[in-house]
Amino acid sequence: MKILRTVDELRRWSRAARSTPGSIIGLVPTMGALHAGHASLVRAARVACTHVAVSLFVNPTQFGPHEDYARYPRSFDADCSLAASGGADVLFAPPVEELYPNGPASTFVEVPGLGDRLDGASRPGHFRGVATVVAKLLLAAEPDRAFFGQKDAAQSAVLRRMVADLRLATEIVVCPIVRDSDGLAISSRNAYLSPVQRAQALTLSRAIRRVESLVAEGERRAEALIAAAREIFAAEPQIRIDFLALVDWSTLLPVETAAPGTLFAVAAFVGSTRLIDNTILN
Amino acid sequence: MKILRTVDELRRWSRAARSTPGSIIGLVPTMGALHAGHASLVRAARVACTHVAVSLFVNPTQFGPHEDYARYPRSFDADCSLAASGGADVLFAPPVEELYPNGPASTFVEVPGLGDRLDGASRPGHFRGVATVVAKLLLAAEPDRAFFGQKDAAQSAVLRRMVADLRLATEIVVCPIVRDSDGLAISSRNAYLSPVQRAQALTLSRAIRRVESLVAEGERRAEALIAAAREIFAAEPQIRIDFLALVDWSTLLPVETAAPGTLFAVAAFVGSTRLIDNTILN
Repeated sequence: MKILRTVDELRRWSRAARSTPGSIIGLVPTMGALHAGHASLVRAARVACTHVAVSLFVNPTQFGPHEDYARYPRSFDADCSLAASGGADVLFAPPVEELYPNGPASTFVEVPGLGDRLDGASRPGHFRGVATVVAKLLLAAEPDRAFFGQKDAAQSAVLRRMVADLRLATEIVVCPIVRDSDGLAISSRNAYLSPVQRAQALTLSRAIRRVESLVAEGERRAEALIAAAREIFAAEPQIRIDFLALVDWSTLLPVETAAPGTLFAVAAFVGSTRLIDNTILN
Repeated sequence: MKILRTVDELRRWSRAARSTPGSIIGLVPTMGALHAGHASLVRAARVACTHVAVSLFVNPTQFGPHEDYARYPRSFDADCSLAASGGADVLFAPPVEELYPNGPASTFVEVPGLGDRLDGASRPGHFRGVATVVAKLLLAAEPDRAFFGQKDAAQSAVLRRMVADLRLATEIVVCPIVRDSDGLAISSRNAYLSPVQRAQALTLSRAIRRVESLVAEGERRAEALIAAAREIFAAEPQIRIDFLALVDWSTLLPVETAAPGTLFAVAAFVGSTRLIDNTILN
């Protein structure tokens, strides 16, 4: 696996790959601190594409001023091993100034409406930062497919809209949430949790499962589903709910009634760590 | 010359062109109503590139609510002739919904700072619309070079910054202003002028020439140069000055002293028609 540091190198790699007949170029954008969730994305890309790049970039513009940019976990050597063993052909790990040559307060990409909903409402500017950096990565790698985890379901909705609006030729592929054996959705931020907090954090997946089983039993009313999830959280007063939402996955707008493809999403603080989880109902 | 209507066709054309060894792909983005200024851009592209696309799209998002989007001149057949005789290989003329599939209030690209200066200050949202549509055109055509007229000097500064920030592989080439024999900078909007207004409009190029000759004589002070230009306008009270500005061409920020590369720019209303002109000092 080759390590690339500049946009020019990545674009040259992609254009050389494209000149191979039948090539399908895949990109797995990550912020590093790779875990089993990322590994599943790399594997999915390896299966679906002839050429696979993994990018590793902790993007400053998607963190709020009081968020965890500085202390976000960084583990370059382990990330390289994981990407290589997943079958990545190249790892793109640029310095910050390579993607922000004029600083972070420069040209941005914004997805109005969607970008201000769910996590975008809780974290103003977050999805602007995500859209901007993912746009840059897609423009550099020119992939046919880019792979993201469903855990960031609102992010996928924002990126799908961005790709459609900007008329990019990249398909956004969303891969299932990977969970620990106890149900906790795997996240780089789980590293922040104390053992006690880790047990409390299971409340999120418990609420998800409760909603899924109510839907399986025939419940469709948003009000009832959200109330049931809220009840699960009531049993764990140490956790502060950020939002519980039943929305259309394309528009991120609230729905009254669950239907196939509806997104049930949870965000909550365990101590100062913000965790998210969700399910796409069927 | 082939006429393309969809982004997919344009991208296929570009990627096929790129597979030719030594290819250099050129794009000339226009809003149609092509004139001698555009012709010079097409010729420049023809000389500098192996493959040339001209795009023709009256972009709704760069017009303000009370501007001339609806009445902007449209002349498709004449535009085709001019592009073809200039040597374009393809003409890209998409319908509005091809570039704005989710309507005009969708994902946008914004260049903070620069986008709010000069014409961006007079026409709020104008450069956001320009940056957004040019980004879409560059992402579709993936050109090595894109050609713009120096008449829109602030636009070129905004686009150069955008391309640098988004790390696109396109060089923004700026071609000299083309003037009528009487000095008036050629513009599609000159079609709006009555014969009397057309004579009044010469005030802009007269002010430009005055500033150029003062600089040639050694004057460097912004205050003096702008005052001299203002004096030229004082002789034509029918014209309303929008701005007279001496700025750094990269940042569009005012300078105290002219230097090589400084932009002197004028915008003024003749009746309800807004005209612009400028010079890059040397």
